[in-house]
Amino acid sequence: MTGSLAIVGLGPGPDHWVVPEATAVLAAATDLVGYQPYIDRVPARAGLIRHGSDNRVEIDRARHALAMAAEGRIVAVVSGGDPGVFAMAAAVFEAVEAGDHGWRSLDISVIPGVSAMQAAAARLGAPLGHDFCAISLSDNLKPWAIVERRLRAAAEGDFVIALYNPASKARPDRIHQAFALLRDLKAGDTPVAFARAVGRPDEAMTLATLAEADPGIADMSTLVLIGSSETRFIAKIGGRPWLLTPRTYGVGR
Amino acid sequence: MTGSLAIVGLGPGPDHWVVPEATAVLAAATDLVGYQPYIDRVPARAGLIRHGSDNRVEIDRARHALAMAAEGRIVAVVSGGDPGVFAMAAAVFEAVEAGDHGWRSLDISVIPGVSAMQAAAARLGAPLGHDFCAISLSDNLKPWAIVERRLRAAAEGDFVIALYNPASKARPDRIHQAFALLRDLKAGDTPVAFARAVGRPDEAMTLATLAEADPGIADMSTLVLIGSSETRFIAKIGGRPWLLTPRTYGVGR
Repeated sequence: MTGSLAIVGLGPGPDHWVVPEATAVLAAATDLVGYQPYIDRVPARAGLIRHGSDNRVEIDRARHALAMAAEGRIVAVVSGGDPGVFAMAAAVFEAVEAGDHGWRSLDISVIPGVSAMQAAAARLGAPLGHDFCAISLSDNLKPWAIVERRLRAAAEGDFVIALYNPASKARPDRIHQAFALLRDLKAGDTPVAFARAVGRPDEAMTLATLAEADPGIADMSTLVLIGSSETRFIAKIGGRPWLLTPRTYGVGR
Repeated sequence: MTGSLAIVGLGPGPDHWVVPEATAVLAAATDLVGYQPYIDRVPARAGLIRHGSDNRVEIDRARHALAMAAEGRIVAVVSGGDPGVFAMAAAVFEAVEAGDHGWRSLDISVIPGVSAMQAAAARLGAPLGHDFCAISLSDNLKPWAIVERRLRAAAEGDFVIALYNPASKARPDRIHQAFALLRDLKAGDTPVAFARAVGRPDEAMTLATLAEADPGIADMSTLVLIGSSETRFIAKIGGRPWLLTPRTYGVGR
């Protein structure tokens, strides 16, 4: 098999957050596979074939990409954020594991990107300055019980928590359930941030405390950050406060 | 105060993993502040003043950068990886919090970058494909007891675990203590990866199981990844196995 498959991260939105390796790989591809809005972000070029899809068929998309690579095409699977973080890399390797044995000889590469929690953190100051975890609230592919177990463990470990996929039309209650659970386990004055569409024209940041936050404002374009016991606001003159999770722990307690 | 301060992520090493926004900010800076090996990665240019330091004085470096910005300079603090993840952003905002009140009116920005765990994950396949946490094993600034508490919580939550700063000359035993703790709590066949200097000429990847891994191979250039109960190897024809943490949980159990 002589083709190749690259899984490329486009970051949260703006071109200035796409790494040069991603740009180079996209310029060399014969075929683009991915969710249509991501495909639309790649400039048109003679000979480049676009295979857009909706957002519900990651595994079919992965199989299609692998089959084309096996035919000798130079395929790029485009993904938002970092393809390795709640994005297309896992779907592609699941398809490899379950698929045609010959796919295991393909040249498959992953090109990293800026994930939503990093973009949110950059805007907010330094909320991820110390130990943190990232949890997807989607229960499409895993039982809700494991999400609850992980939220409890994240609170027990006093990690900063980044919540991906906080809500969708099919399961609007999950973010409310997650906040109810965390409010039982963490202090009410814990800083919380809702970072919506960071880097895009409709970017919106909302800061709150865990006790007073309205989790209902989170949609599928929102990354939710919940602080550790050390995370705090720093007042800024003439602007929104910064968020800091310091490198120290327990100093002054 | 008319100056500005940008905290810029240079990623793990290669230029093709530096986002264009970082390159643009570095091209506009009057002053670079940072650990000398990071400063050395920025091309020389007339009028650019370099303020290199060793790796032990993050907070002094941050204060110096803020003081220069307050004098009207255009300052870039350079950081490896993502400045928000176990890097310079936290030190800068700690210095803001404790420092001259006027610093709170400065224009401070953070430019995200590719962090070590993302580069490691890209090389390995999709080990971060599902919920994960990131823990620094350094106990320079926090008690070891909180590291142990977080390792236990990460095991209880069955997270994939990314360990930063696994070892140093001053504390070579910490990685051995962490492995001993995790071996009591997690299955012996859990996949483990030691990703050393990813993207640099001396890059080296070592795969093992938790039971058989030699944690002594981790140095300060190594990112250690430890799987969840779902993480597995996928045999590759003609190469090192891939690592996959699938999006599903508990399927087939």
